[in-house]
Amino acid sequence: MIKAQQVVLSSRPHGPMTPQNFSMLEIPLPDLKAGEFLIRNKILSLDAGFRQWMNAGASDNYLPEMPLMAPVQSIVLGEIVESLHPAYPTGSHIVGRTAWETYSIADGSDLMTIVDLSNGIAPEQYLSALGPSGMTAYFGLLKIGLPRPGDTVVVSAAAGGVGSLVGQLAKIQGCRTVGISSSEEKCRWLISELGYDIAVNYRKGPPLAQQLRDAAPDGINIYFDNVGGEMLDVALTQLAMNSRVVLCGAISQYESDEHSGIRNMWELITKRARAEGFMFSDYIDEYDEASMQLAQWIAAGQLKAPLNLSHGIGSTAKAFCDMLSGDSRGKCLVVLEA
Amino acid sequence: MIKAQQVVLSSRPHGPMTPQNFSMLEIPLPDLKAGEFLIRNKILSLDAGFRQWMNAGASDNYLPEMPLMAPVQSIVLGEIVESLHPAYPTGSHIVGRTAWETYSIADGSDLMTIVDLSNGIAPEQYLSALGPSGMTAYFGLLKIGLPRPGDTVVVSAAAGGVGSLVGQLAKIQGCRTVGISSSEEKCRWLISELGYDIAVNYRKGPPLAQQLRDAAPDGINIYFDNVGGEMLDVALTQLAMNSRVVLCGAISQYESDEHSGIRNMWELITKRARAEGFMFSDYIDEYDEASMQLAQWIAAGQLKAPLNLSHGIGSTAKAFCDMLSGDSRGKCLVVLEA
Repeated sequence: MIKAQQVVLSSRPHGPMTPQNFSMLEIPLPDLKAGEFLIRNKILSLDAGFRQWMNAGASDNYLPEMPLMAPVQSIVLGEIVESLHPAYPTGSHIVGRTAWETYSIADGSDLMTIVDLSNGIAPEQYLSALGPSGMTAYFGLLKIGLPRPGDTVVVSAAAGGVGSLVGQLAKIQGCRTVGISSSEEKCRWLISELGYDIAVNYRKGPPLAQQLRDAAPDGINIYFDNVGGEMLDVALTQLAMNSRVVLCGAISQYESDEHSGIRNMWELITKRARAEGFMFSDYIDEYDEASMQLAQWIAAGQLKAPLNLSHGIGSTAKAFCDMLSGDSRGKCLVVLEA
Repeated sequence: MIKAQQVVLSSRPHGPMTPQNFSMLEIPLPDLKAGEFLIRNKILSLDAGFRQWMNAGASDNYLPEMPLMAPVQSIVLGEIVESLHPAYPTGSHIVGRTAWETYSIADGSDLMTIVDLSNGIAPEQYLSALGPSGMTAYFGLLKIGLPRPGDTVVVSAAAGGVGSLVGQLAKIQGCRTVGISSSEEKCRWLISELGYDIAVNYRKGPPLAQQLRDAAPDGINIYFDNVGGEMLDVALTQLAMNSRVVLCGAISQYESDEHSGIRNMWELITKRARAEGFMFSDYIDEYDEASMQLAQWIAAGQLKAPLNLSHGIGSTAKAFCDMLSGDSRGKCLVVLEA
C-alpha cells in the first residue's frame, strides 16, 4: 500500500506565518474509484496568494477557507501513476491544483491540465513562466496594464515569482522598469539579472515616495501591485495622468489582522487613473497563445524565469514562510524528487 | 464706477465648513484692458468638488489651493455687459469659471463658453443638466461605468447635483437603480421624483452593508461614488464580478483632516473589478453631443434636473455649507437677480 506524506495546516496564524503552523502527516492511500487517478507529485508551487485562505473566515468567490488538518492546497506538477479515468492515462504529466503532498488522488473536476514534457522545456517552467505565475504576469501586464512603449512601469515585490517576470515583460514591451524590493542584494539582482532600469529598496534610504519620485519623475504609468497596503498607498501619490494600477496581490495584507487603509484613493480621480483587479484564470481561453509567446521569449533569451528551489516535502513549510517574509528571489518551488 | 460684491474665503476650515469661513467684500472694478470683458454674473453654481481646494496645501494638477481673501472660484452663468474682446461681444451669455461675485472680469483664457439663451432652455440648466453636473453624470456613467441593461447601479449622494441625474440616466440605460441618501424624506423623493428603484438611508436602519446586500442581492455592477471614504469601503464589499466603481467625488473626505482609509481594496481583485477616476473636462470634444442628448431627454420628460435655488450673493456661503452637510436636494445654485 502506498502512503502519502502531507503538509497540513495545523493551526491558523496570528500575524506572520511560521513553520509551526504546519504539521506533517503520513496517510495510507485508499484504492482508486472509477473516474479517479493517482498522481505522484514532482514539484509543488509556492504561491503567496494561497496564504489568504489560511486565515479564519477567508472564504471568497475564488476558494473557501482552508480547513485545519487537511493538506494545504497548491498548484503542482505530477505524473499519473495509476488511472481509472480515460482522459488522464498512466504515464502522462499534469499541472493541476491538488495539495502539498507526495501523492494526490484526483478526478479531473478541478484545474488539471496534461502537459507534454518531451518538448525540451524544463518541467519547472510549467509552474513558473508557463504556469500560473507566468500567466499572471502576462495577462496582468498586457490586459490590465496596457503597456505602451516609453511607459514607466513600477513593480512591487519585483523579485518575486510574478514580479520577476513582469519587469522583463515590460522591457519587451519597450517600457522603463522600476522594481521595488526589500534588500540591496535583491535590488542589485533586479538590475543585473532581470534588466530592471532602476531598483528601489523600500527598507533603506529616503522614504519610498521620494524614491519613487526620483525613479519616475514624470509619474508612474503602470503600477503592478503584488503587495497592497501601505506600499500601494504611497504609489498612488506618484501616479501619472491616465495611469493604470494592476491589482494582482496583496501580500502585505495576508498576514495582517487589520488591513491597512488606503488613504490616497482619490488620487485616482485627479489623475484619471484606473485600479483593476484580475485573476489569471479568467483568461483560460488565451493560455495557449500566451504559453507559446512566453516560450518563444524564453527560447530567444529575452525572458529568464529565475527559480528558488527547495528540496523534499519536509522543506515546504519553511520555504513558504521564507517566501512570505521576503527572503526569496524568483519563483519558489519545492522539488519532491531528484 | 461699478462695484462688485465678492464672497471671499476668509479662513480655512478645520473640520466642517461654516459660513464664518467666508466674508463679503465690495470692491470697485478697474477699467477693462484690451482683450478683457466684464461679466455680470446671474447664477452661481455650488459644487462640492471645489471644497477640497479650500484646504491648506490642496493644490493638485486640476486647480491650485484657493488663496485667502480672494473670491471663491466657481462655475457661473453671466451676461457680458462690456467687452474689449471680439470673441466675447456685449450682450452674449457665458458659462465659465470665474468666482462667487456679482461681476467678473475675464479674458477668455479660462473655461468660458458662450451659450444661446434664446432656444427655450431655462438658463439654470446650463449649470445643471447641461453644465458641469450633467457632463459629470453623463460621462462618468457612460464612459467609466459602461452600463448594460439589467445592471444594478448604486449611487452615493444620490440626491445631490450629480447623483440626482446619474440615477435617471441609468434608468434610461435600462439599469436597476439604488440611491444612497441621508434622510427618509430624501429617500422618498429619490423614488417618487427621480425614479430610483430603491433608496437606502445610511443614517438609519441596518448597517449600510446589510442594506446594500438587500438592495443588490446579486451584487453591485456599477457603484457611482460621489462620497468616498467609509461609504466607498462598504460598497466595495458588495460588488458583483467584473463591476465598475466610478470615482467621481469624495465629499466625505474634503472636510476631514485625515482621509478615511479604504480597507477593502482587495475586493477589486477577487471581483475582477475596476475603480476609475475621471473629470468631465476630459471629454470636452464630446460636450456638444452630450448636451444634445441630455436636452432631448429633458424635452421628452425622461430626465428631470431638480434645482435647489437660493437667492442673492449674501446667501452663497450658507447655501454652500448646507449642501456640504447634506441638507439639499438637486443641483444647488445661487440666483443673483430675479
